[in-house]
Amino acid sequence: MTSVDKIQELITKFIDSQDFMGVPTELYAPIDYTMSQKGKRMRPTLALLSCEMFGGDIQTCLTPAVAAEIFHNFTLLHDDIMDEAPLRRGLETVYHKWNSNIALLSGDTMLIKAFQYALSTNKLYSQDILAELCKVALEVCEGQQYDLNFETRDDVTLDEYIEMIRLKTAVLLGSVLKIGAIVAGAKESDKQAVYDFGIDLGLAFQLQDDLFDCYGDVKVFGKMPGGDIADNKKTYLYLKALELATPEDKKLLSDYFSMPKGRDDKKMKAVLDIFAKYNVREIVANLMTDYYKNSLKHLDKIDVPEENKTVLRNYADYLYNRIK
Amino acid sequence: MTSVDKIQELITKFIDSQDFMGVPTELYAPIDYTMSQKGKRMRPTLALLSCEMFGGDIQTCLTPAVAAEIFHNFTLLHDDIMDEAPLRRGLETVYHKWNSNIALLSGDTMLIKAFQYALSTNKLYSQDILAELCKVALEVCEGQQYDLNFETRDDVTLDEYIEMIRLKTAVLLGSVLKIGAIVAGAKESDKQAVYDFGIDLGLAFQLQDDLFDCYGDVKVFGKMPGGDIADNKKTYLYLKALELATPEDKKLLSDYFSMPKGRDDKKMKAVLDIFAKYNVREIVANLMTDYYKNSLKHLDKIDVPEENKTVLRNYADYLYNRIK
Repeated sequence: MTSVDKIQELITKFIDSQDFMGVPTELYAPIDYTMSQKGKRMRPTLALLSCEMFGGDIQTCLTPAVAAEIFHNFTLLHDDIMDEAPLRRGLETVYHKWNSNIALLSGDTMLIKAFQYALSTNKLYSQDILAELCKVALEVCEGQQYDLNFETRDDVTLDEYIEMIRLKTAVLLGSVLKIGAIVAGAKESDKQAVYDFGIDLGLAFQLQDDLFDCYGDVKVFGKMPGGDIADNKKTYLYLKALELATPEDKKLLSDYFSMPKGRDDKKMKAVLDIFAKYNVREIVANLMTDYYKNSLKHLDKIDVPEENKTVLRNYADYLYNRIK
Repeated sequence: MTSVDKIQELITKFIDSQDFMGVPTELYAPIDYTMSQKGKRMRPTLALLSCEMFGGDIQTCLTPAVAAEIFHNFTLLHDDIMDEAPLRRGLETVYHKWNSNIALLSGDTMLIKAFQYALSTNKLYSQDILAELCKVALEVCEGQQYDLNFETRDDVTLDEYIEMIRLKTAVLLGSVLKIGAIVAGAKESDKQAVYDFGIDLGLAFQLQDDLFDCYGDVKVFGKMPGGDIADNKKTYLYLKALELATPEDKKLLSDYFSMPKGRDDKKMKAVLDIFAKYNVREIVANLMTDYYKNSLKHLDKIDVPEENKTVLRNYADYLYNRIK
């Protein structure tokens, strides 16, 4: 089996070999800028790991894996417009470095490019990969719309939050794993199992992200914690605290989350105190662990020799134990 | 051959039979709103006319034809954000009726839906249709970016303007005609000829649109003429006048087009006077006729019996002689 490091090297090399430039430059330079950033490349990595687990050729999986990576980056470009976000991965967003029209149009172009990459795979399975990409792309848009809706709603439930992050984050992890399985020619039940593994892993990953945002070490995490609190984001932490709190604390918390967005030390301390009082950090950490453990149960069910699963299992473990 | 009226009835019936709703409603209601508007449906009409000209079954062409219509409407949603346009087809734009985030995200969803429709065609040619849709979609984005670039440039050439409208408008007409030919199983040279027919027809169509915008009758055209002048749009009319004008008139014209956007009677009269002085209305009308005549030459070359071409030829003639 190929190591994760080697797989990530392959992906980086492949992406670097692609020509994302074109004319007019204003349209294509932001795509080149985005794709040349060295992120975790988690989505193509999962696709290739899944493909190899099922005995497929990772070389032939590079194109659809990168289609998913381009798609993911398209969502970031458009999300950053909606969030008016100046920074991402410690770098200026396209929205901020250029402007919102360019982020809009370059994002559209990336979405089309993602389909073009998915299309340029072997005809044996390009149809299935495209169908999967269409399905997941619609779901990710739905998740983003729920996220927008939550901003102005004060009756969001815990279940609705989980459904939102399932759509916004988890389904794409499920789909890239499934795409790897499609390329490898895996059987239906295994495609479903690896997809389900991705869903639970994705939910754990997003809950962990919420925890990092709140409690991350600035030196390790690379950014000041508390961004979600400053932005009045109704995360699981907030919603759980709201559920458990006394009427007084509930009022206090929702009043703080009705303040205009922006950092405020008094608000930050008060919210963190309420979170601590109701133990929500531990509750979310436990839920994250539950999802992670569930994801492994799906991995267990997959009908390939145990040694084929090792690299993917270790990568999931690495994600679960990551510190940023 | 099926008449244009009958074809448009088929398209409307097919679109009306589709379910564009879904959850969250905020995401899908704008799509339903957009797709239920009764426009010219020019793009699917051309696809079906081309398909039938080549002896294909128009029923099987409905899905890819509607994919192109959904794609076209996606571009309108995003263009309206960029133009901050309150009205389109006499109705509120999604951008204005909802907001820019919803227009952005619903637009993304429509682009994905367009690919999903293109994918759900016969496997015999879905690959070719998707490739064509990806290619044309990228070109339309490029055209829109050129259009944005022109706003802040003062050295746009006539050739650049033609290239911009080729990308922004004409290629989609070429592509839908080609898609009809693909569904019908036409030979390569005919696919190319019908595509070229669409390009020249599209250029004629856009120049005519520019003329309507400037000289259209408000009672027929349904909107006050002069929108492009108010918006400082560097159309062929403006660029040609700039080319022919004396240094004094040139300065006057470019000064007027440096004013803030918005209607201004004095500016309107002065610009129209300069246009009249240099006969640009006639020049553009002649150029439009040249493109129209050229488009017919491509139609002539197509290797099917002359009677097969009649309906498409009449539809092109109708577009050329349209009054709105």
